[in-house]
Amino acid sequence: MKLNVTQKLIKDHLVSGEMTPGEEIGLKIDQTLTQDATGTMVMLELEAMGLDYAKTEASAQYVDHNLIQVDNKNPDDHLFLQSAARRFGLYYSRPGNGVSHPVHMQRLAKPGKTLLGSDSHTCANGSMGMLAMGAGGIDVAMAIAGEPFYVKMPEVWGIKLTGELPDWVGAKDVILELLRRHDVKGGVGRVIEYYGPGLKNLDAMDRHVIANMGAELGATGTVFPSDEEVKRFLKEQERRDEWIELKADKGASYDIEEEINLSELEPLIAKPSSPGNVVPVKDIAGESIYQSYIGSSAQPGFRDFAMAAEIVKDKKIAEGVSLDVNPTSRQMLTELVQEGHIASFLQSGGRLHQAGCNGCIGMGQAPATGRNSLRTTPRNFPGRSGTKEDSVFLCGPETAAASALKGEITDPRTLEMNYPNIKGPKKPNVDDQLLDKPLPEEEAKKVELYKGPNIASIPEMDRLPDELEVPILLKMNDNISTDEILAGGARVLPYRSNLPEISKFTFEIIDESYYDRAMDIRDHGGHAIVGGYNYGQGSSREHAALAPRYLGLRVAVVKDFARIHWQNLVNFGVLPLTFKHDEDFDKLQQGDVLQFKDLRDKVQQGNDIKATVKDKNIEMELTHALSSRQVDMMLKGGLINWVKDRQNSKA
Amino acid sequence: MKLNVTQKLIKDHLVSGEMTPGEEIGLKIDQTLTQDATGTMVMLELEAMGLDYAKTEASAQYVDHNLIQVDNKNPDDHLFLQSAARRFGLYYSRPGNGVSHPVHMQRLAKPGKTLLGSDSHTCANGSMGMLAMGAGGIDVAMAIAGEPFYVKMPEVWGIKLTGELPDWVGAKDVILELLRRHDVKGGVGRVIEYYGPGLKNLDAMDRHVIANMGAELGATGTVFPSDEEVKRFLKEQERRDEWIELKADKGASYDIEEEINLSELEPLIAKPSSPGNVVPVKDIAGESIYQSYIGSSAQPGFRDFAMAAEIVKDKKIAEGVSLDVNPTSRQMLTELVQEGHIASFLQSGGRLHQAGCNGCIGMGQAPATGRNSLRTTPRNFPGRSGTKEDSVFLCGPETAAASALKGEITDPRTLEMNYPNIKGPKKPNVDDQLLDKPLPEEEAKKVELYKGPNIASIPEMDRLPDELEVPILLKMNDNISTDEILAGGARVLPYRSNLPEISKFTFEIIDESYYDRAMDIRDHGGHAIVGGYNYGQGSSREHAALAPRYLGLRVAVVKDFARIHWQNLVNFGVLPLTFKHDEDFDKLQQGDVLQFKDLRDKVQQGNDIKATVKDKNIEMELTHALSSRQVDMMLKGGLINWVKDRQNSKA
Repeated sequence: MKLNVTQKLIKDHLVSGEMTPGEEIGLKIDQTLTQDATGTMVMLELEAMGLDYAKTEASAQYVDHNLIQVDNKNPDDHLFLQSAARRFGLYYSRPGNGVSHPVHMQRLAKPGKTLLGSDSHTCANGSMGMLAMGAGGIDVAMAIAGEPFYVKMPEVWGIKLTGELPDWVGAKDVILELLRRHDVKGGVGRVIEYYGPGLKNLDAMDRHVIANMGAELGATGTVFPSDEEVKRFLKEQERRDEWIELKADKGASYDIEEEINLSELEPLIAKPSSPGNVVPVKDIAGESIYQSYIGSSAQPGFRDFAMAAEIVKDKKIAEGVSLDVNPTSRQMLTELVQEGHIASFLQSGGRLHQAGCNGCIGMGQAPATGRNSLRTTPRNFPGRSGTKEDSVFLCGPETAAASALKGEITDPRTLEMNYPNIKGPKKPNVDDQLLDKPLPEEEAKKVELYKGPNIASIPEMDRLPDELEVPILLKMNDNISTDEILAGGARVLPYRSNLPEISKFTFEIIDESYYDRAMDIRDHGGHAIVGGYNYGQGSSREHAALAPRYLGLRVAVVKDFARIHWQNLVNFGVLPLTFKHDEDFDKLQQGDVLQFKDLRDKVQQGNDIKATVKDKNIEMELTHALSSRQVDMMLKGGLINWVKDRQNSKA
Repeated sequence: MKLNVTQKLIKDHLVSGEMTPGEEIGLKIDQTLTQDATGTMVMLELEAMGLDYAKTEASAQYVDHNLIQVDNKNPDDHLFLQSAARRFGLYYSRPGNGVSHPVHMQRLAKPGKTLLGSDSHTCANGSMGMLAMGAGGIDVAMAIAGEPFYVKMPEVWGIKLTGELPDWVGAKDVILELLRRHDVKGGVGRVIEYYGPGLKNLDAMDRHVIANMGAELGATGTVFPSDEEVKRFLKEQERRDEWIELKADKGASYDIEEEINLSELEPLIAKPSSPGNVVPVKDIAGESIYQSYIGSSAQPGFRDFAMAAEIVKDKKIAEGVSLDVNPTSRQMLTELVQEGHIASFLQSGGRLHQAGCNGCIGMGQAPATGRNSLRTTPRNFPGRSGTKEDSVFLCGPETAAASALKGEITDPRTLEMNYPNIKGPKKPNVDDQLLDKPLPEEEAKKVELYKGPNIASIPEMDRLPDELEVPILLKMNDNISTDEILAGGARVLPYRSNLPEISKFTFEIIDESYYDRAMDIRDHGGHAIVGGYNYGQGSSREHAALAPRYLGLRVAVVKDFARIHWQNLVNFGVLPLTFKHDEDFDKLQQGDVLQFKDLRDKVQQGNDIKATVKDKNIEMELTHALSSRQVDMMLKGGLINWVKDRQNSKA
């Protein structure tokens, strides 16, 4: 059978399941990446699992999100991550090295491999002929521990590229074109695979731009072949010997087929407040701007910065515009310094920031209220910039720089200058000491985790008891989101490495007394909650399951669950049950005590679970939807215990 | 009479008083500077005063403190400051241009002039043969409005410099030596004037380093002569024609005389947590470090960065050390980029931050808990770094860079390398568009102040009533600090431009109900507070007087006042009274109502004020200590009304 690149990658890594779109498959994971905002919990999970040493070929811990150090919390977390990287045999990328995705691509990415990362833009490394996917923290922890990653077999969406990009049109316009055509859910359940004659005109970092924002289409991943350009890139990075060729078989087909003629593209821009809200720049030219922002993993290349620098060179940006330059890696920043581009930015009036994610994730560079901000970043969801009433547009560096000069949204084709035809750095400044290398296993075992005052280990989680008698501490209605279960934001996020502290915010929005009431009975059997339809919708944050579990939640009984939160409850050993008869919801009241008998046997024997309401003579039928693998996990008290047992039995 | 430089500067600007140390003198102010953290309130004060156009020769509004934009507040404030600079005829320095003190020195400082700034390190520009002084915001607002600055005539402390700095010893060691000898109160009531043959070996930016940290000695100012070196500096800045010579008369004397032989100095370091805690570096060499920090207005020169860059060039900093590079101005950063020094920092593993104050004022770069941080900044007060349990050392760039390489405190003389003998930039990159120029008066008058949602004008303040009947809302004991009256910190500071919002935190530490109780009667006559000895000690923040006044405080009756807070109360129209008989303090209770009759007459007629306690048949004798100028202000309801009247009467 003729295979496309995606199918080849999956076939090479398949450990369970069938390659039928929609079926669950298990994939061997070769590489992982974690960043600091999600990584602290991953490292605590590895500690709780009792992992001795990473089982992957290469795993790297980056520090790129929480670079603003206004008190001890972030620097203490950095030290913890450094010690954890040493303890578990991971690469460690210090603060200041840059954003995980481009640094990983430069130093570690390898054609033919799988990469799982606890960051939704992990897909960017699909530029290197890899299957690169974002996932939740504990999925990545599992991968580091050598377990497969379970995912639904995707459809493969083949995009044939033809033609050549015109002057003033860049890689960003390719992915914006796809978003214009298909909006932000167009890629769900799919891997996007690019091929065709147009590919030769996109260099490796251009492909990174396109692969990165596959996330904005909701795709499982984006895959480019490993061709001569990937070879050239690896050679430039002094890693020529890590190249292998990886192309679709001649005559291979795709589940969905589509074409983009690069020659027909023009400068595009996504208006507030969705990446799918795409129009030609010329349609909205003239609107005044407050900010122009160059950088992020959606525009990380040397070329992207050099292009903007050449546009503003020897000119001054418009009065009142903040031109924020956010380098993506130390290596690239050094090249940009050495080849004069940083001087061009500075002399034009730009603000140079440290290498990292910065404003792309709302860590600084927030715009003024209601003022237009043009960004080369991947997302413009409302408020993501940090400013509640923001107005963020997404575009390429050509448009961002042109608009900074004019003080208004400007189609770069209207500039009176020659197109600066930029290639990569003339003299690449490869820094292979950029990442602290993993310690050898014997040395790593001697390392102690460093835990500052903000770091708290994940407590032991007990196994599912055979008898449960648990009061209902909260009864809620439909559509409770994970934001209501555990809020995000600057008040809560600094405690992401501290389960006891972050737990204090649990259900705070719904009932401020929940935390105290849960703590009172935490060590006396725990509690239950009851909910309606679509319980746990919204953000995938795993803390929304972990924190209630820490406070003693054993059983969640609802009409139905949102998919990811259900998965998270299972992972952390909270038994998720649904009503067999929805009308039973009305029979339950806050304060009622639910009783379960022979629970361990019942969970194993089938899907039906009986509960009685103490002192009320009410019985009700409930069901679980656990797979046999998940039943095993549940009995053991969750994924961490399950892995711990496996690690021990292997040892 | 033979005059020293300080006396010449004072004599040239004297508008009232006698030049007798300790006597109040009034000085004409030629230039002002404001930064963003204090400037928003200054601009609101100018608005409240009804100022039409700045009366100074040059006034500049810098944005260097609040560069971290995590939400709309800081960027909204920047836009407000920009509009205010345009409205009132000030220079405006955009975020990213750098720290006020070095930028002012490069672009605006002028020998022979006076400079008043709402930043305690304004004294740094004493390097240019100026009398440069820090002051409270409203004092600077007054100066912008053309009013004199009132200060006690200082003693002049002549420091004769002889010899020449040895290799590896820099300007920072000169001021650390003075702090070692005299500690942090050694300069109170004095201007420090440097002279002698050693001067010729200190360039203008070296002198800036020394003048800057005069603030740490508590000095009123620091003065250097305007000599050939100042001429050279101004020529380099393309402002040669702004130079005048200004030297002490031959045979001039000083109130206090002292000598420093530069040849005898060695690398010094201030240990935690006071700038006066100075020892030789060699005495504590070997202690491990977490952070090494290059930058701030206490070490702003090209030479200071280039020195550190040459030390780390072609080497890697120790694993685990954070080398934070904080450029001080756009102009200098560009020079450092162009001459290769920034590349040296980056390649060694350093983190490059945007030009500004940054970690020096706790805006980022906080160290990890309990870990040693070496900084070239001026202050290491406990917690100033942002981390409560910090451990900050102050030193020069030679020691900071040497220690970053070794990972431990290192005397730079022990490095195995030749001393990098660095002079200023080979090719200065003068940027005279760095500051947005003031609008001409006619254009300025048309500008509207831009006020984002976080900006609130200062409300009108009413005049002192003739009859007062005010309940005592708080009775407090001795030593109440301005931190207790109105806290600082990240929770409160973002509201510095918003009096109604920041007022909600007033006295919160002492009594959370104060705000509500005050608001209840704010528009029904207001209230009084009662305190013990040393009321209002600590920080000079003017909000600690302005916020209670906004909430209706009319009279503060205490045993005695701390000097600056007393001044602030007067400035904002709160009548400060002390007990004639301290035992009367015990007769007053919270809730008692104080009655004052014929108050306006009484305040003018002398210092004695009688109060009665309503319904209690208690009378007591109180006194005020206002000068006749201050009585006038008090009757008008404070300085803002007083100036407003003067502006109107001149118009």
